Amino acid sequence: MISKDTQLCISLSGRPSNLGTRFHNFLYAELGLDFVYKAFTTTDLAAAVGGIRALGIRGAGISMPFKEAVIPLVDALEPSAAAIDSVNTIVNTDDHLVAHNTDYLAVAGLLASHGIRPAGTAAVLGSGGMAKAALAALRDAGFGDLLVVARNDQAGPALARAYGARWLPELGTQRPALLLNATPVGMAGGPAAGDLPAPREAVEAAEAVFEVVAVPEETPLVRLGRELGKRVVTGTEVAALQAAEQFVLYTGVRPGPDQVSRAGEFSRAAG
Amino acid sequence: MISKDTQLCISLSGRPSNLGTRFHNFLYAELGLDFVYKAFTTTDLAAAVGGIRALGIRGAGISMPFKEAVIPLVDALEPSAAAIDSVNTIVNTDDHLVAHNTDYLAVAGLLASHGIRPAGTAAVLGSGGMAKAALAALRDAGFGDLLVVARNDQAGPALARAYGARWLPELGTQRPALLLNATPVGMAGGPAAGDLPAPREAVEAAEAVFEVVAVPEETPLVRLGRELGKRVVTGTEVAALQAAEQFVLYTGVRPGPDQVSRAGEFSRAAG
Repeated sequence: MISKDTQLCISLSGRPSNLGTRFHNFLYAELGLDFVYKAFTTTDLAAAVGGIRALGIRGAGISMPFKEAVIPLVDALEPSAAAIDSVNTIVNTDDHLVAHNTDYLAVAGLLASHGIRPAGTAAVLGSGGMAKAALAALRDAGFGDLLVVARNDQAGPALARAYGARWLPELGTQRPALLLNATPVGMAGGPAAGDLPAPREAVEAAEAVFEVVAVPEETPLVRLGRELGKRVVTGTEVAALQAAEQFVLYTGVRPGPDQVSRAGEFSRAAG
Repeated sequence: MISKDTQLCISLSGRPSNLGTRFHNFLYAELGLDFVYKAFTTTDLAAAVGGIRALGIRGAGISMPFKEAVIPLVDALEPSAAAIDSVNTIVNTDDHLVAHNTDYLAVAGLLASHGIRPAGTAAVLGSGGMAKAALAALRDAGFGDLLVVARNDQAGPALARAYGARWLPELGTQRPALLLNATPVGMAGGPAAGDLPAPREAVEAAEAVFEVVAVPEETPLVRLGRELGKRVVTGTEVAALQAAEQFVLYTGVRPGPDQVSRAGEFSRAAG
């Protein structure tokens, strides 16, 4: 039962989904925490962030297209956000807003937990916020040869430069050891839902594939990677881990792996 | 189950209680409406109201000490708020904030439903926001002889002047036909919880007593008025009706009298 003392957490994104709302509320109930979570959008980011501070909203997930625009509106950046100049989480403690990036934390954590160690070339497909988080995590994990593959001939080279990577508009005949998809290719309902984000031959040649698209769990890249017996990280794992890290930042409570897994399943059930 | 489409309504006050939160959430559940309500406080009213607009928060109850300070922050005043330059309700429709005062509406409605017609003197005890709402409602109901009784020798005379009333620092030997208590005297937990807000003789001489203190339901004034067989309006009725009018403004749905009554009981059960 919601009371005046219930803490509110929210998300801000251009196109809110139900994933975060269902994930967090599931875990609040599971763990008996007096919190409530709801997704919002806004046409006035500065006023929305001012409202987070003035209303004492405990935390806010920040999604596209606000991840960079929100930087000047917070009071401090934690290393996870500073490393990539991109924010996906704001924690409000006594009107002081501290920004984090749990996408970075999730990619770093999943590289480690899946035993994906620096060797050969790691290719990041895409040039958006998630590509940036992935590049920074790969660099910080020790990958020495980084490749950015992005058609956008402004964002692509700029991103590559910032993280000491090479840039190519297409993968072509390159055969990286790690393929990380940070494009929307494979996303349910998108224009390329049935496509691979890289040539099949490149997937065959890779040692590991790392998917960032969260819905469906089994994208074409994940399916092929599994068929070929590669190490596979799914976008569902990324989404769940980044959300779990947000949950810890907001509540101070770390849910167990089984709880995170069930919250993730619940969140996708009526996504 | 809360989703991204659930509408949020809030309250803003210096010292939030659980009354509104419980009242509104009870009726949302009762009526199957996809809304959620939570009380907030703030130290930055302008940013909080900016946040209401930017986040698309559907409605906000405004309590002490923000009822007048909020006026320049909204886009339009409805007559109920303009009549008394005091706002207790903001409705946000597509980022356009319209202010109302359901305290005024509740006092006006209860005068009518209790058959309290203009005759003799009506005395309003107090000089705060609720006193103003009551004075305006009495004036607009046709009471010609209005008396403001307030020790504060600045707010009292100013309020009286604004509504064509006389001012007295104490009731003294005056014997009004209607006694309306808009002071905190009789409020549970307050310094004058056991006191009458006017001399016993004045209550005996009155035809009707109108209480604004909502907790407890039976204040000393209400108890004495009932014992003496007067027409009695309770602060609980005021609170429930003003909250019900807010509910209608936010949701477009009018709960039945029985539902309002049960929501009021529920809200006070763990107030």
